[in-house]
Amino acid sequence: MTITRRLFNKSLLLAGAVAWLPSFPQTQLRVNGQRLNATISALSEFGKNPEGGVSRVAYSEADLKGREYVLRLMRGAQLEVSIDAAANIIGRRAGKENLPPILFGSHVDSVPQGGNYDGVVGSLGAIEVAQTLADKNVTTRHPLELVIFQNEEGGLIGSRAMDGELTERELELVSRSGKTIREGITYLGGQPTELASVRRKRGDITAYLELHIEQGGTLEAEKINIGVVEGIVGINWWDVTIEGFANHAGTTAMNNRQDALLAAAKFIQAVNQIVTSVPGRQVGTVGRIQALPGAPNVIPGKVLLSLELRDLDAAKSKMLYDKVYAAAQGIATESKTRFSFNEINVNIPAPTDERIRATIAESAKELGLSTKSMPSGAGHDAQDMARLGPVGMIFVPSIRGISHSPLEFSRPEDITNGANVLLHTLLKLDQKL
Amino acid sequence: MTITRRLFNKSLLLAGAVAWLPSFPQTQLRVNGQRLNATISALSEFGKNPEGGVSRVAYSEADLKGREYVLRLMRGAQLEVSIDAAANIIGRRAGKENLPPILFGSHVDSVPQGGNYDGVVGSLGAIEVAQTLADKNVTTRHPLELVIFQNEEGGLIGSRAMDGELTERELELVSRSGKTIREGITYLGGQPTELASVRRKRGDITAYLELHIEQGGTLEAEKINIGVVEGIVGINWWDVTIEGFANHAGTTAMNNRQDALLAAAKFIQAVNQIVTSVPGRQVGTVGRIQALPGAPNVIPGKVLLSLELRDLDAAKSKMLYDKVYAAAQGIATESKTRFSFNEINVNIPAPTDERIRATIAESAKELGLSTKSMPSGAGHDAQDMARLGPVGMIFVPSIRGISHSPLEFSRPEDITNGANVLLHTLLKLDQKL
Repeated sequence: MTITRRLFNKSLLLAGAVAWLPSFPQTQLRVNGQRLNATISALSEFGKNPEGGVSRVAYSEADLKGREYVLRLMRGAQLEVSIDAAANIIGRRAGKENLPPILFGSHVDSVPQGGNYDGVVGSLGAIEVAQTLADKNVTTRHPLELVIFQNEEGGLIGSRAMDGELTERELELVSRSGKTIREGITYLGGQPTELASVRRKRGDITAYLELHIEQGGTLEAEKINIGVVEGIVGINWWDVTIEGFANHAGTTAMNNRQDALLAAAKFIQAVNQIVTSVPGRQVGTVGRIQALPGAPNVIPGKVLLSLELRDLDAAKSKMLYDKVYAAAQGIATESKTRFSFNEINVNIPAPTDERIRATIAESAKELGLSTKSMPSGAGHDAQDMARLGPVGMIFVPSIRGISHSPLEFSRPEDITNGANVLLHTLLKLDQKL
Repeated sequence: MTITRRLFNKSLLLAGAVAWLPSFPQTQLRVNGQRLNATISALSEFGKNPEGGVSRVAYSEADLKGREYVLRLMRGAQLEVSIDAAANIIGRRAGKENLPPILFGSHVDSVPQGGNYDGVVGSLGAIEVAQTLADKNVTTRHPLELVIFQNEEGGLIGSRAMDGELTERELELVSRSGKTIREGITYLGGQPTELASVRRKRGDITAYLELHIEQGGTLEAEKINIGVVEGIVGINWWDVTIEGFANHAGTTAMNNRQDALLAAAKFIQAVNQIVTSVPGRQVGTVGRIQALPGAPNVIPGKVLLSLELRDLDAAKSKMLYDKVYAAAQGIATESKTRFSFNEINVNIPAPTDERIRATIAESAKELGLSTKSMPSGAGHDAQDMARLGPVGMIFVPSIRGISHSPLEFSRPEDITNGANVLLHTLLKLDQKL
């Protein structure tokens, strides 16, 4: 009986593919943009904030309920759906050949007070692509796996489990939901003791594709439809300590001060000057600062601040850091303070695959859409998938570049364009790879 | 019997004065430096910190016990001691004439983790002067009042009660001891309902003299024995808010940022540049800063910081503020941010009396000590006494200018010099005023 059913299914699929090919040219295939944008609107009800946007942090009840909605959509798109041991949602669509699968997807968890588009556009865009393939009975050569990674915002947890990077120690960390990651995985239906089962090796996937909002303002400002992502930037982060000498703000003459905050002010300006002194899309940010003791009438004796540098090219980040470090030494001497740098966390850059980039651009062109090559300044699950095989990312415009905010917004037509580019890139890669 | 005793006492005093005048020229009078420094050491036991210095915040048990020790010393110096309704300790020594009293003194409360000299040198120096007058049976023309003001560090509370500035609302504020000021006054033996009784009017005092450590490094650096205080600077304080736009530190291009912390960095440098661009002893400090949301990977959208300007000349402070304000507007335009200034607190400058300054300098010269005129950058009870009559302040060197710290230190010989200058200034003013 099992054999009969398999054969039956296979015949149906083949019949569908054969039936479709002559009557409906693949290049004419389009997603249903209205349906896609309706699902985005429906998902925004899970964890909705009174002031707009969502707080659907991983492992919260809103996350669980949102995932249940997504599961229903995936089943509706005729995907064979499962929750893996790491609590990623996997929706499989069989291929014609015995090949490693093409993966595509994104995430549906959000930051606290987040928006309705980050992760969601890529997740529901992928489901819409699967639904379109199902509607038109398209069967690809490669098996397809639609992945909704869990807890992207809390440190790419689901994709890091898939490439084997997630440590036992990390499972004990408390996430924004209040649950540890281990508890969160169980809560979402995973099995933290079985994480080895989700681990994949390089070559286990044919490719990974992700549609995402830009989270920057470039596409909108330049009126470009589609961003072709060159890679995901490396992130270097340092905790910087500046030590001066705390003293009475009334009695200590200006020329007798070792003001750590004045030194910090010069440092912050130097970082900005150095990062903007060379061409390119690199960024440098001081986002956190604390001056001690922190009273209006005391000269700060100590400042703690964060320095973050991001670029696609690790060598360029290193060059910028070297310049920043040298500038700090100059400021230290001049201001009689001492700088120390503690490197906290390094994400190495993850370049996308050249063939996939070309295919995204070709697909967009055939759809009449303009494109621009650009780095992703934000981290994405795609950077972990890049350890397993070639990856590509498709960006759509974010209005005013606002992200991780209730004000996050992408236009419905831009989202539909992105999903169509995803669909055609997938179909072309299915032939090429 | 009462009459007899009074007559007996009076005859003794007169006899003493008469006996002393010919045999012991007043200019030869010296305090007992060893005794003075021994009392400083003894007082440092009350609220002593394990790591050095004291935490003798007003209204704490350490403050109460320290005051009891001081009271005993004052009684030993034959002062007629009382605690006024505001909990200031007053030690009275009768004068020969019916004149408004000359006041002198300081405070014995400390900041948390404070030192052994701020306030203490002036208080115990004053007691040593009284003890010396008692030892030598010197009777002045004016009655003398040695005042140990309560809670100087928490806002000049005792001296502000004396000039009638302390409000009912302030009595409800919680001090560093955990007690409200009202509760603290009661705890130290005052009567908060009777504050009107301690209020004095302009002319009710002949003069007020205070010995104090410099709390800056000028006297030590220039090897000067005595600072002749020109006045107590006015303090202007603003809370400054800088509003930019919080955004993703990875995806927001450098030229598309409205970074409130970068604007703050430029502002902090501008304050320093403006304050040091004109000659004089004015100071300007940014001591407190907060960047929001305060994450390494988010461009700060908002910064809150404090700006403090101090100078003897209110017009100069105003001129400096105007320049700082104008600079802020320029930074705002350039960085697409918005600055707003909220003035929190204004202490007007309190100049010292010219005759008293000349007398301090003359006394020091006769004692073979070098002097330098200088402002007091810190606030002192003397600034409140300046509303009631002419005031003068005598500074002694602070090693490395460190104050409000366990590292605060003044050399015993410098302290002795200061007390001798206080003694002779007092005796000269008693004749002149």
